Amino acid sequence: MPDARSTPVTAAILVIGDEILSGRTKDKNIGYIAEYLTSSGIDLREVRVVPDVAEEIVAAVNALRARYTYLFTTGGIGPTHDDITADCVAQALGVGIDVDPRARAMLLERIKEADLNEARLRMARIPFGAELIENAVSKAPGFMIENVIVMAGVPAIMQSMLDAVAPRLRTGARVTAETIEAGNLPEGGYASDLALVAKAHPGVSIGSYPSMTPAGFRNQIVVRGRDGEAVAAARAAVEALVARLHAARG
Amino acid sequence: MPDARSTPVTAAILVIGDEILSGRTKDKNIGYIAEYLTSSGIDLREVRVVPDVAEEIVAAVNALRARYTYLFTTGGIGPTHDDITADCVAQALGVGIDVDPRARAMLLERIKEADLNEARLRMARIPFGAELIENAVSKAPGFMIENVIVMAGVPAIMQSMLDAVAPRLRTGARVTAETIEAGNLPEGGYASDLALVAKAHPGVSIGSYPSMTPAGFRNQIVVRGRDGEAVAAARAAVEALVARLHAARG
Repeated sequence: MPDARSTPVTAAILVIGDEILSGRTKDKNIGYIAEYLTSSGIDLREVRVVPDVAEEIVAAVNALRARYTYLFTTGGIGPTHDDITADCVAQALGVGIDVDPRARAMLLERIKEADLNEARLRMARIPFGAELIENAVSKAPGFMIENVIVMAGVPAIMQSMLDAVAPRLRTGARVTAETIEAGNLPEGGYASDLALVAKAHPGVSIGSYPSMTPAGFRNQIVVRGRDGEAVAAARAAVEALVARLHAARG
Repeated sequence: MPDARSTPVTAAILVIGDEILSGRTKDKNIGYIAEYLTSSGIDLREVRVVPDVAEEIVAAVNALRARYTYLFTTGGIGPTHDDITADCVAQALGVGIDVDPRARAMLLERIKEADLNEARLRMARIPFGAELIENAVSKAPGFMIENVIVMAGVPAIMQSMLDAVAPRLRTGARVTAETIEAGNLPEGGYASDLALVAKAHPGVSIGSYPSMTPAGFRNQIVVRGRDGEAVAAARAAVEALVARLHAARG
C-alpha cells in the first residue's frame, strides 16, 4: 500500500444547473461536500459551476476528471428535458448510454410499472460500465464511472448518495485543522508576524479569516496539515503570537 | 448603441480561498452575485473556486477573463501572507503592481498613519492601470482592471463593492423569469409534455426544480428569457399543462 501521506487523494466538484447561475437556487452542496471530503482525507482542490449546456458540461467533466483523483458532479439527473448530465458524462468518457436494468428495478421500488414512462426512464439511463449509487430518498440512482461520481442536486438526495459512495473511495491521511481565536486583534497588526510563523512551519498551511460581528471584526487563524506534530508546533507558535499581541494591547 | 438583446453581457465568478475548499467557510457570495447580476441583465455563465495557490489563480483568471464580458473575483485581498489575489491578477494581466497612493489614502481614513505597517499596505497594492472600487465597510478598496473586478471575500464588504462597481458595468436586456407552481405534480408525470412546450418555445429556457418538503416533493417550473412576449407565451403554455394535469388527477 502506498503511504497515504505521500499520495494525496484529490477531488473537484462540478455543479450543473442554470438555476444556480441565475441565483434562483442557492447552492448548498459545495460546502457540504467540502466538509465531507476534508473529514474523509480527500483534498477538494477545485469547484466549477456550469449551465445546462452539453458542451460546457462535457468540457468541464473532461478537464476536471483528468486533473483530480475524483470528480463529483451534482445536478441534472432528473426526468426533465434539461436533465442532461448522464448523457454528457457518457459523451465525455466516450461510452454508450441506455436504460440500465438495475436502475430500472430501483425506480420500480417507488414508481408503478404503468407509470414508468419515457421521461421517468431517463432517470435509469446510465453510461455503460458505471456502478450505481443508491438513493435512499427517492430511489433514482446516481452512478460512478471511472473516477466520475454523478449525484443529484437536491441536497438530501445528494447527501444520501455521498454516504453510499464514500466507502468505495480511496482516502488519504486526514488533515488536522486547529483554529486559534485572535478575537479583536486586527489582522493588519499580526499579519507580518504570522507570515514569519508560516515561513518557519512550511509543512502546514496557515490562514487568517476575518468575520464581521455586531462588535466589529473578529479574526480566526487556522493551521492545517496532515502531520499532527507539525500542526501542533505551528499552533503553539500562533498561540504564543496571539498571547503576546493581546498582552501588548494591555 | 448596440441592440442589448443581440449582445448578451456575460460574466464569471472566481472564488479564491482554501477556506471554501476545506469547508471551513460556507460561501455566501456566489448566490448573492448570481442574483445581483441576473437582475442587472448580466448573464452569469460560470463559477470556479480555486485555492490560495498562485498558479491556480493566474490560470483561472486568464481562462475566465478571456471568455466572458466580466470576471468577478472574491477573496484574497486582505493583509495576510495568504492574500495573493492582487499580485496574481497583475501577473495574469502582465502588468506591474505597487502601493497605490489613492488606495493608501483610503486606508488612512480608517487606520492611523503610525499603524500603516507593511502588512496593511499590502491592501493598497493595486495593479497598474486599475480603477479602485470603494469599500464602504472597512475602506481597503477592491479594483477593476480591464474586465476583471476584484472584490473582498467578507460578504458585507463584497456587497458594498458590488454596489460601488455596478454603475460602471455594461448591462444587457434583463431576463424575465416566471415561476409556475406545479405543486405535488410529479416531475416524471409532466416531463414529456414539458419537453414539447420547451421545443415549441425555443426563445426561452424552461427548467423544472424539485424541492423536498415535509409533505413530499414539490416542483416549480421556471420560464426564463429576454423577450417578454415569448416568456408570457411559454408561461401560458406551462400553466395550461399544469392545470390540465391537476384536473386529470381530480
